[in-house]
Order: sequence, then structure tokens, then C-alpha cells
Amino acid sequence: MYLSDFATEQWMNDHENDAIYNMTDTCISPLKLKDLLALDKQNLLSEITLDYGSITGDIRFKEEILKLYQTGTIENITLAQGCLQANEMVMETLLNNDDIVISFTPGYQQFVDYPKSIGCIVKEVALNEENDWLPDEIALQEAFSKPVKMVILNQPSNPTGSYFNKDRLKTLIDLCKENNTWILSDEVYAGINEDEVSVSDIYEYGISTSSLSKVFSLAGLRLGWVKANQELIHLINVRRDYSIISTGPLADTLGLIALQSKDTLLQRAKSIVKENKAVLIEFLEAHHEFSCVIPQGGTVCFLKYKGNISSKEFALKLLKEHGVFYVPGSCFDCENHLRLGLTRDIKMFKQGLEITAQVLHNAS
Amino acid sequence: MYLSDFATEQWMNDHENDAIYNMTDTCISPLKLKDLLALDKQNLLSEITLDYGSITGDIRFKEEILKLYQTGTIENITLAQGCLQANEMVMETLLNNDDIVISFTPGYQQFVDYPKSIGCIVKEVALNEENDWLPDEIALQEAFSKPVKMVILNQPSNPTGSYFNKDRLKTLIDLCKENNTWILSDEVYAGINEDEVSVSDIYEYGISTSSLSKVFSLAGLRLGWVKANQELIHLINVRRDYSIISTGPLADTLGLIALQSKDTLLQRAKSIVKENKAVLIEFLEAHHEFSCVIPQGGTVCFLKYKGNISSKEFALKLLKEHGVFYVPGSCFDCENHLRLGLTRDIKMFKQGLEITAQVLHNAS
Repeated sequence: MYLSDFATEQWMNDHENDAIYNMTDTCISPLKLKDLLALDKQNLLSEITLDYGSITGDIRFKEEILKLYQTGTIENITLAQGCLQANEMVMETLLNNDDIVISFTPGYQQFVDYPKSIGCIVKEVALNEENDWLPDEIALQEAFSKPVKMVILNQPSNPTGSYFNKDRLKTLIDLCKENNTWILSDEVYAGINEDEVSVSDIYEYGISTSSLSKVFSLAGLRLGWVKANQELIHLINVRRDYSIISTGPLADTLGLIALQSKDTLLQRAKSIVKENKAVLIEFLEAHHEFSCVIPQGGTVCFLKYKGNISSKEFALKLLKEHGVFYVPGSCFDCENHLRLGLTRDIKMFKQGLEITAQVLHNAS
Repeated sequence: MYLSDFATEQWMNDHENDAIYNMTDTCISPLKLKDLLALDKQNLLSEITLDYGSITGDIRFKEEILKLYQTGTIENITLAQGCLQANEMVMETLLNNDDIVISFTPGYQQFVDYPKSIGCIVKEVALNEENDWLPDEIALQEAFSKPVKMVILNQPSNPTGSYFNKDRLKTLIDLCKENNTWILSDEVYAGINEDEVSVSDIYEYGISTSSLSKVFSLAGLRLGWVKANQELIHLINVRRDYSIISTGPLADTLGLIALQSKDTLLQRAKSIVKENKAVLIEFLEAHHEFSCVIPQGGTVCFLKYKGNISSKEFALKLLKEHGVFYVPGSCFDCENHLRLGLTRDIKMFKQGLEITAQVLHNAS
């Protein structure tokens, strides 16, 4: 089953270790294990047996996950080892050769190339920077000219930070209802903004995926989930027997501890993003060779620059000469952009932006 | 992508919690987290940051894995979340529609139904109970009448405990060499017996998979690996970006701690299997309505019984009336058998067998 190289991930793998200023990470500055263990007030870890644990996931953890949503029961949830795997499970369970899938670009490569590897026909609808990185409505409607099996959203989007608000989501659902089109909504970047809507809360064929990796700062637990209608959760659970069996009692219990303190973790994430965003806005006011649609939500945005240097060359120059690390727009087939994470230390972020401006100036 | 229900796993999921006497588990009695932490003499856990960690796996952990083999470097290894996932990664990377795959039955359902879901043609070669659960040589040769893409072994086998010794493996490799046929050898049950050979140590297109779940008693870590030639490891690593990214620093470090004490863990496993096996042999001598090919290696065997009761009915009766839990042969399409694990408390094992004999007697 052929799959192209995953450009962003390969770039991260190849270069991340050379970063001094990590300007591009999508995860809020990660917690240490001891920070997480300090949240374990009930000493839940002490009696864990390292067997497979509950196959579809620890019930207490699923109950905590449920509190992130407006509707459903724990029967609407199953666990995965990260949101990426949750998405993969959904796609491999539902998609078949020749199914039509709608994805949005620039976006996360999994949503285009993974369905293609199954043999699906993927219609790529452009996110329009002029339209705050939302798709033009007519283009979206035209993509529904034939029955669509699945629409894949990223709410908020990596790399643009844009998302469909409730009204726009309802319009999309109206397009989907005619053929019971599934909407897979990767909501791993949700939680920063208050007005986000989980598609699984408002549409029978809406599937919300997420994980503890991004806004909860715990990528190291490799723990995500799917929330969807019970029939689909059952199908995924059957399929999980071929791929993971369970996420295991250790990860589940650590996930439970994390979500029992979700308000603390989310508050930390919101504060970091807010501070970074303020620095970015100030930077843009002082440097008109850069522009950026300030993201409504999520942890990343897509910084645009004026100049003739390619995004790859620019990113490599920044990294090699100054340790300033970005994913270039070329990884998203979108030139003159750099993916900018609002996730790390504010002082480093400020310095990194200034170096970026200086290097662009010297290259022009 | 259609996949049948995984009969054994579904049976385990549906019934395992009702077991008093677990006679069928494939994992050596699992360790508690605190037992594993007690092995952390260097306090490796104290400074872990819960980010993605090293993408293809902690180098120190890969170096410990390498010590389980005779050949290779850490470039020959990549990590997965369990052996099941390691197998899945290998198959989805190498197999395509219409490829011919050879699997052995009775065996683990993943090795037949997963390649089928990709569109492969799966030739099932019988393991012959009369031949100590090894395939008849002519039947195996005949399966190579057309070029074969992959042969899938389970060394030792679940549920039979049989495996290809070095001579037999070399004969198979000779059949494979003509077309560079891959041999995927799931070696998750290896480690109990001394004369086992890892296929990746003796054949360029040999792929060994394993995990910490079975003989290392740590299924709860969800941690496995692939050892294969570097070209394949590279292809799998590229593909992992679409499914797991990494196994994470917490699991990797716990895996490192476990394998630093591998001799202790393996000695424990060997001792438990040996004791159970002795009880089984004694039981068979006293109960001629039962027979069993005593397994050369691994943690399970396939107990045969005389009588008209179906394996499913027998297993349900044992479970519901006495809490004695088996996977019935029907889950392996093989009647009049029960999968017997040599993995648990010796006293319970003895009592469980006696109850099994009593129930069969009453049902006859």
C-alpha cells in the first residue's frame, strides 16, 4: 500500500534536533513526567498491573474524556495511541477503494495521502488566505457534485489555525446530510478558544478525534481517542483487535490523572498561546514584510513573508545559521510561508522572530 | 477496508473478565508497575519529558533489543506499540492487492485476514497435528507454485507452540530465495527455549517482530519492535509518520529498564512455563480423553479432547459453571481443541485442568 513521505513529519525528524529556537512546534511546551505524577493525588499509579487492561479503555478515563463534550456516553468513545492513529482507525474502518473524500489544503498531509493509499478519490478544497484561511463556499459546494463518503476537517487547522464556526459547520452538515456523508473532525488543537464546536456533538455522522498531545502538553503518553456514534465505535473496536488491542493501563491511568486536572492544563496552554500571540501581533506591526492571519484557535498559524527566497531555503538558512527552526510552507505545498507555533517560551519566541526578520532582510 | 471480527480477541474481550481460572492467557503472569520500577536502579524515569521523544525509538532501548539477536545494528530496528502493530506495519508497508501470501493454520487470525483486507491472495498451509503441528513439506512446497510475496510464520506458534527449527527454517529460506520472498516471523513467544532462531539473523529478507507483552510479562507497556534489513526499516519509519509518530519516551524508558533486567524476567517466564508443563504432562498421563503435542517453546499449546461437545459449548460451560476460561478451538477453525496457556499460577492451573476433565466426563 503505497504512501508518500510525510513531508512535515520528515522535516521535523530530520531537523528538529538542531533547533535552538523551536518556532514551529504544535505542542504546548511539554510537561515532565514528574509534573504529571505530582497531579496524582489519589496515588492511582501504585497498584497498576501491566496487563492489557480494559481493552477499549479505562472507564474512568473515558468518563473524563466525555466531559470535554456536550453529548454522548462512554459507549461513544474508544481510545487510540494518539490522534493520528485515531484518524487512521476511522479512515481504515470507513473508507474503501473509489470512495470520494473531501480534504482541505494547506492541511495535514494524512488527510490527503492516507485516503489515497486506500484508493479513495480525494478532492482537495483550498483554504483561502484572503478569506481568513476558510474555503470559498462555492468551491466547497462544487466538491459535493457526486456523493461524498467523508469530509475531513481539522478544527482548528494545522497549519492555518482557522476553523469552521458553528454556523459554517451547520452549513457543511446540511451538505453532508443528503448522503449521510461522514465528517471526520480532527479536534486535537481545540481547547484554546471557547466557541469551538465538536462535530460529534451536533451530527449523527460526525466523528471527533483528539489526544493529549497538543493543548494538554502530553505527547509522550501517545494517547488519543475517537468520539462517534456507537455503531462506528463498535466497528473500530473490532478492528483495533488487529492493530493495538488496547492502549494499556499505564497510559490510561496517566491520561485519567491528566484530565482530572484538565482545567489547570488548559489554563496553562491558553496563557502560553495568548502571550505568544501578543508578541506576534507586535512583531507584525513592526515588520510589514511579514503578515499572518491571526488564528482564532489552536496552537499554530501560517506566517507569510515577502521575498524571493524559497520557504525551504529560508528555513534551512535560519536553522543552520541561527538555530531558528520552522517547517517551511513547501511541506504544505504553499510557498512564502512558515509554520509558526505559539507554543513555547515567550522570550525565545520573540528573539526567534527578530532573527527571522533579520535573515529575510539580509537575503533580499 | 473490510476485516472480519478477530475471533480469539473478541472471545477474550467478551469473556475474560468472568474467568476465575485463566487457563488460556498467552502472557506470562503480568508484572505490576511497582515491580518494574523497582528494577530502575539508575532512576531513569526521573527526568523524562513527555514530548514525542526520539521518533524511531530511544537508542539505548534499541541497543538492548539488539542484544536479543545475533546480527545487525540499531539501524535494523524500529519500534511499534506491540507486536501486533509491528506485524501490521510490516504488512501494510510491503503488501499490495493481488500479492500471494502464505500463512499457516491453525494460527493467529491477523496473518490470514489482515493480508486479505489489503487484497492479497492468502494460501493457508495446514499445521499437521500428527506431525507435531508442523506443515507437511510437500504441501508447503506446493504453495510456492507461483511467486510468493511473503510467508508469515509465528515462531513459536499461537496456539500450537510449534516452530520451525533451524534446519526447517533453512529449507523454507531456500524456497524463498528464488523470488526474494519476505519471511515475516512473529517471534513474540520466543525466549523460553534455547534453540530458537530469529529469521532476521539468517536471511536478508527475514523480518523478526516481537514485544514485551508475552515472555517479558509487560503487555501493559504496549511496546514491540521490528528487526529487518535497513531498507525495510526506513520504509516502515516513513510510514509510521502516518500512524504513530513515536512510541514515546515513557514507554521507551520503561522498555529499557525491562530489557536491562531481561535475564531475570526470562528466568521467571521459563520457570512458570516449566512448572505448568510438568503439571500438564502429569494430567495427560492420568486422563487419556485428553492429548496434547507438548510445545517445544512459547507459552501456549493446543489441548485436544475426545467427545461430542463442541469446543465453544465446552468452553462456555466451563466458564459459566466453574469460571474456568479457555479460548475454544472454534476461534481457530479447529474443533475438539482448547487453547491452553502455560502462563499462570500453578495451583490454579492444576485445579482448572481437573475441573476441565470433570466437566468433559459429565458431558459425555
